[in-house]
Amino acid sequence: MSGYVRQLAEQARTAAAIMATTDASTRRRLIEGMAAQLESNRDAILAANADDLARGRDAGLSGAMLDRLMLDPVRLQSIADALRNVAAQPDPLGQVTRREVRPNGVVVERQRVPLGLIAMIYEARPNVTADAAALCLKAGNAVLLRGGSEARASNAAIASCLHAALRAEGLPEAAVSPVADPAREHVLELLQLTDLVDLAIPRGGEGLIRFVAEHARVPVIKHYKGVCHLYVDRAADLDKALNLLLDGKASRPGVCNALETLLVHGGVAEAFLPRALVALEARGVEVRGCARTQAIVQDVRPASEDDYAAEFLDLIIAVRVVDSLEDALAHIARHGSDHTEVIATEDPATAEAFVRGTRSSAVMVNASSRFNDGGQLGLGAEIGISTTRLHAYGPMGVESLTIERFVVRGEGQVRHPDLL
Amino acid sequence: MSGYVRQLAEQARTAAAIMATTDASTRRRLIEGMAAQLESNRDAILAANADDLARGRDAGLSGAMLDRLMLDPVRLQSIADALRNVAAQPDPLGQVTRREVRPNGVVVERQRVPLGLIAMIYEARPNVTADAAALCLKAGNAVLLRGGSEARASNAAIASCLHAALRAEGLPEAAVSPVADPAREHVLELLQLTDLVDLAIPRGGEGLIRFVAEHARVPVIKHYKGVCHLYVDRAADLDKALNLLLDGKASRPGVCNALETLLVHGGVAEAFLPRALVALEARGVEVRGCARTQAIVQDVRPASEDDYAAEFLDLIIAVRVVDSLEDALAHIARHGSDHTEVIATEDPATAEAFVRGTRSSAVMVNASSRFNDGGQLGLGAEIGISTTRLHAYGPMGVESLTIERFVVRGEGQVRHPDLL
Repeated sequence: MSGYVRQLAEQARTAAAIMATTDASTRRRLIEGMAAQLESNRDAILAANADDLARGRDAGLSGAMLDRLMLDPVRLQSIADALRNVAAQPDPLGQVTRREVRPNGVVVERQRVPLGLIAMIYEARPNVTADAAALCLKAGNAVLLRGGSEARASNAAIASCLHAALRAEGLPEAAVSPVADPAREHVLELLQLTDLVDLAIPRGGEGLIRFVAEHARVPVIKHYKGVCHLYVDRAADLDKALNLLLDGKASRPGVCNALETLLVHGGVAEAFLPRALVALEARGVEVRGCARTQAIVQDVRPASEDDYAAEFLDLIIAVRVVDSLEDALAHIARHGSDHTEVIATEDPATAEAFVRGTRSSAVMVNASSRFNDGGQLGLGAEIGISTTRLHAYGPMGVESLTIERFVVRGEGQVRHPDLL
Repeated sequence: MSGYVRQLAEQARTAAAIMATTDASTRRRLIEGMAAQLESNRDAILAANADDLARGRDAGLSGAMLDRLMLDPVRLQSIADALRNVAAQPDPLGQVTRREVRPNGVVVERQRVPLGLIAMIYEARPNVTADAAALCLKAGNAVLLRGGSEARASNAAIASCLHAALRAEGLPEAAVSPVADPAREHVLELLQLTDLVDLAIPRGGEGLIRFVAEHARVPVIKHYKGVCHLYVDRAADLDKALNLLLDGKASRPGVCNALETLLVHGGVAEAFLPRALVALEARGVEVRGCARTQAIVQDVRPASEDDYAAEFLDLIIAVRVVDSLEDALAHIARHGSDHTEVIATEDPATAEAFVRGTRSSAVMVNASSRFNDGGQLGLGAEIGISTTRLHAYGPMGVESLTIERFVVRGEGQVRHPDLL
């Protein structure tokens, strides 16, 4: 087996070198072509997805898993639309981000170049196959795709569309290289290829991500979980705060940028919590509260310390009443996951203190945690959200798949003319 | 022992949170204060260094190692000057690098924040203790310093100067935390602290760097070696090319940005090589050449394939005559280390083809490889040179010790108003 993944990676690495030399219009056409291929092969993709779903039901996958796996015409169209968004992003390659003339006359430029070869390791969602490939190719990279076996047929059908678009531009199919063989040791081998793989990005449950982080010798960018907080300040507009709470918790509870904990300043707890909890319960959200929450609202189940560290990914929320911004920040520092924090306040000074006092990859002032998403933040799409404080922090778009190098131009300058 | 390093790291992490809240003028004063402390404690530092040198001679350290270890008034002054350069760098923190208003009215900003806690693991050079601390603190980080035991006394004397400057600003000494206990298992433990250490930067010989890369579970940015090439193109100005060759190879052969291989276009080999090899030999450089080199110049020792992959760090150079730019690029792709490549040519199209055709962290057109240095390229100083194609690529200055996060400001916008 040992040859299989290395050979795939070597072919992908060669393809990456070719992708790095393509021009912007070719890459844009390529990704638009990928979107068109997905549309014209809709029936084949949906049929393959139906096979995956049938196998998944037989295997007893959870409803949530089957939902992540499921494609329909609407979801497939939104995948194609996302690819067109990526195609339309400004092209990062060759861009000179800085330029300085040194005292000795040499011109120092920083120039954006592709990362190289990126390995995506992910679970059920078939859209990742298309999104990840498009983002990597837009930035002039090649990508190794290791999707979940439960989405095998869907991923293969999507990959063949991507390959058709590559062929149409005369580019190597290996620029998008699925690791088709499901054997798990292939993932282990992939994670050791430090001479070929520049970056591994795991996307999926915490178990998958810990497995990758634990075994990788190649660089990894990841986030484990999103324990996202909403702090309702004493100076909050309580109507806005309620909207932020309901959108953050109830609009899609199974995603990483959903809210898991509500922190309320004691000065507004009596005004806010009764309304908030009624609205949450009306949407089927289970509330777990601190003693002060229970004192304000009847029949609230008590929250444990574990509840404040939990990513429920479900219609459950932990609630705590705090005495100050400092207490809220201390709670977030202790229980947060560096993902997304939100403050509702009309006081600009408090808002800035909250921004300064949190170290998370995204901080929202009077805006929903659900905006921590590459598309929502203007990146076109995202290959993942990083809570690794290196290279990228937050949603990763096209630019996060590039790196800046130095290009120095002179007229023969040397460092030690005295020694010549 | 297991408690020792974790406790150091926890204290440093707490100090990092405090450093992150300091303002630009405080950090600037702090680093200027560090420079002043080094100057006013010159005699104590030189005395400590004399102890290290005496112990090193007794231990039979190589001359090169003793030279890297040695401090004198001139070198110490240049360390203090480097710190003032770092202090004078533009302050990166809080800087808004991008700002966009989304269609729904939310304002999306990218804001520069510190990395957090950085671990430096390095060998003989005592200047790294001061440079690394200054760069990390300038960017609002804390740093764990694990220097070589051969420089123990020098590093301790320098660290006490840095602590005095921290105290003078009312900042925690733990922002600069030396790992004093020399036991090697402390390094191993340090490299496992994924919950505390954001980045490890090894600096030293390839053995040290491989040890760190092999054992680290925390992110690592590194370069293994600098196998730097000079390609003398057919359209080169041969006088400039000769200067680039002599400066790159002979001005300081023991450093990573020195030249190791000379590639010469066949069209100018007969005009260039005889001059070049005479000049190299006049400077004591041993030449190892390909068959064509030997055919042009008498008594050249043959180069082996290993010679073309070697980082000699010595007065030795490998020479090959090539037939084209493509052959030169193929040689570099096969033997290079992504560090620094140089072309001598007066043909702009050839220069751009060389820049496009190399993936190294620094590419020089008619400029010496020795300019691949943070100070020379305008970064004030460098904490290291990265050939890791992630986060930073090339010399790493203050900005490379920060990360950009998202700050989103709204007036209560939610993602799914329809669901409220």
